[in-house]
Amino acid sequence: MGRRTGLPPISWLMQTALTRPKLISLAAGFTDNATLPVELSRKLLNQILRSPKTGQSALQYGITAGEMNLRTLTAKHLQKLDGGHDHAHSPEHVIITGGSQQLLYMTLEALCDEGDILLVEDPTYFVFLSILQSRGLQARGVKLERDGIDLVHLETVLERLKKSGELRRVKALYLVTYFQNPTGATTSLAKKAATLKLLKKFERAAGHPLYLLEDAAYRELRFDHGEDVPTALTLPGAAERVIYTGTYSKPYAPGTRVGFGILPEPLFTTVQRIKGNHDFGTANLLQQLLAGALASGLYDKHVAKVRKNYARKARVMKLALAEHFPASVEIWESGGGLYFWARLPEDVSAGVKSKVFQTALKHDVLYVPGELCYADDPSRAKPDHEMRISFGSASEENIRKGIARLGRVLKQFIR
Amino acid sequence: MGRRTGLPPISWLMQTALTRPKLISLAAGFTDNATLPVELSRKLLNQILRSPKTGQSALQYGITAGEMNLRTLTAKHLQKLDGGHDHAHSPEHVIITGGSQQLLYMTLEALCDEGDILLVEDPTYFVFLSILQSRGLQARGVKLERDGIDLVHLETVLERLKKSGELRRVKALYLVTYFQNPTGATTSLAKKAATLKLLKKFERAAGHPLYLLEDAAYRELRFDHGEDVPTALTLPGAAERVIYTGTYSKPYAPGTRVGFGILPEPLFTTVQRIKGNHDFGTANLLQQLLAGALASGLYDKHVAKVRKNYARKARVMKLALAEHFPASVEIWESGGGLYFWARLPEDVSAGVKSKVFQTALKHDVLYVPGELCYADDPSRAKPDHEMRISFGSASEENIRKGIARLGRVLKQFIR
Repeated sequence: MGRRTGLPPISWLMQTALTRPKLISLAAGFTDNATLPVELSRKLLNQILRSPKTGQSALQYGITAGEMNLRTLTAKHLQKLDGGHDHAHSPEHVIITGGSQQLLYMTLEALCDEGDILLVEDPTYFVFLSILQSRGLQARGVKLERDGIDLVHLETVLERLKKSGELRRVKALYLVTYFQNPTGATTSLAKKAATLKLLKKFERAAGHPLYLLEDAAYRELRFDHGEDVPTALTLPGAAERVIYTGTYSKPYAPGTRVGFGILPEPLFTTVQRIKGNHDFGTANLLQQLLAGALASGLYDKHVAKVRKNYARKARVMKLALAEHFPASVEIWESGGGLYFWARLPEDVSAGVKSKVFQTALKHDVLYVPGELCYADDPSRAKPDHEMRISFGSASEENIRKGIARLGRVLKQFIR
Repeated sequence: MGRRTGLPPISWLMQTALTRPKLISLAAGFTDNATLPVELSRKLLNQILRSPKTGQSALQYGITAGEMNLRTLTAKHLQKLDGGHDHAHSPEHVIITGGSQQLLYMTLEALCDEGDILLVEDPTYFVFLSILQSRGLQARGVKLERDGIDLVHLETVLERLKKSGELRRVKALYLVTYFQNPTGATTSLAKKAATLKLLKKFERAAGHPLYLLEDAAYRELRFDHGEDVPTALTLPGAAERVIYTGTYSKPYAPGTRVGFGILPEPLFTTVQRIKGNHDFGTANLLQQLLAGALASGLYDKHVAKVRKNYARKARVMKLALAEHFPASVEIWESGGGLYFWARLPEDVSAGVKSKVFQTALKHDVLYVPGELCYADDPSRAKPDHEMRISFGSASEENIRKGIARLGRVLKQFIR
């Protein structure tokens, strides 16, 4: 299987960024250095390591599924985000992993055999596509609208797979439901509910459960103080069919790599066993760090600060886009997360080999070509006229400069 | 593939230990709480998190293969252990992982397709067997002697596989070369050299490289101040054929889950890509913690203390075994690590379903039944008259009590 594993585009982009010191990267999904909880982590780690009792326990092996205190705090945290709803938020079904990435990987290990099919948003998170490719899995794209997938298209795709006899290879639909990577789109609760019903309807023909895999990695990076959209976990039937993945990497710190998920049985048990084979459990010390942050309420305070910071940077980027980008470029603005999605006129390519991308690189500005976010789906051509532009790690000054550079490049290719 | 993944015996043993509070566990491969570097870790983390510059970098994403400072320090550390030898110790081929466990997992992902065969020591590390089972891989056991595998038997096994046409499914030989889990045996350098030659000899018939996968997890837990055995990395041809895995979990702290390995190309590149799909890199904060420990020399000081502690506990267990175990039980004593290996007379079963094991449990003492450490190998029956007994996590008092309890149980079944 190793022979199939290609260079993930994210690594290629990171390497490119590192070899050009003057480059302004609007590509990386890095979080902002300025708001990383350095002082807070020092304080919390000092508390844990102050006494031999708590210190030794944090430095020892733990339980494969994760420390019970962090699993309980995580379940409570999700219940709170979901407005007190708790029917599918049991700590017993929470697993702690090395970022939510590891959970996505293990979930696919648990669910799929080579040749199986995952339904994904068109476009979707590109490292998820890397996992599919390396594990010999297929993908079918479902059109994405600004409030989630196109339900009519989902039904068409399912019908088509049913007719071709491939439905029995379909195992799950993968949705990045909050401030999606790469488009910034957020899936409405109504769409989550309709999706879950539609999947259920096709289960008999599939001959097995069709799971909704909800990736909420960016959920806590919401800008405004409006309402959070509840997760699919709050819907009827969720306890049996929704796999939810989240992370503390984005809202707290990527350098701690603590993610989590909620899985229905029998998947939970299988994933827990796979985790036992991978690493017997995520580093205990980091789990205790997150547990300390959550229990003290300092996590919430920190996240509030982080959200304000990204909201400000998003505004800076929005203004710069309005000033420098040609008017014919369609901009998708998000209510959170780290990204803007820019759609050039369809006849202008922004792909890896395009003149736009190469010229941008020459002018020391990097973005993620949208084409990398589309699955290899034989039923449609890959759109290549889009760009993911991140305001996550760049400074406000570099956001302005980077967008100005990119705007100048685009004006060479777009009338 | 998930459907194949069984409950790993280690989880079952851990769960058993947790449900019986009076139980003395001589089963767990846990390290000793008393020597965990609580104060040292606090000091080092404070240094890292004292300034925004080092703190932010530790809390940010890193490089998939690991931070270059830790990779360089790790390569130097291994060179030093290997007496200055450096030809296969390049930092460019070092990868940092979530314990060495994760590296073992990813190496098998990179090397093997379903149905492939791994050669393993008979007996071997049982979680490695769990990985094989879950990934649909086969194992063939090679007899283990007190200084490493039986070379004549290795050649016999390879010849047999060649004759049956199965040699092309063989990808590697897995050896736990220092204070082996479960027997405590250490492989001599002469045996490593002969093994590497023998594998080379069969490569033409196999049609591809036959790797030596050297797991050195316990290497630094050596009791005496005698010489360390050099790794297979020091041998001619090692740079192309030796995969070396090590860990900071055992000598430093399991709660940090930082392991490492050295892999030849093209495996290094493949494993790095797989790591990109698993988690894009091990938690940066913990990598910086280990880098700080190594760079300051405090790591070496700490390990010296740890070794003394285990040497003392091993002596306590040795005396207790001599006092309480029937004379007909053969004890393998080790020069390091965490385990004694006890071999009962062949007609006395010590397996999971045996009266010995059940009676021991009833008397609140737990060991690892040796049979769990034998691969499913159709060419021989599984021996079930052996026990792995650990002095790692139990206190000296509990080691004495536990061995006394176990001795009383054994005397019921052995004349």
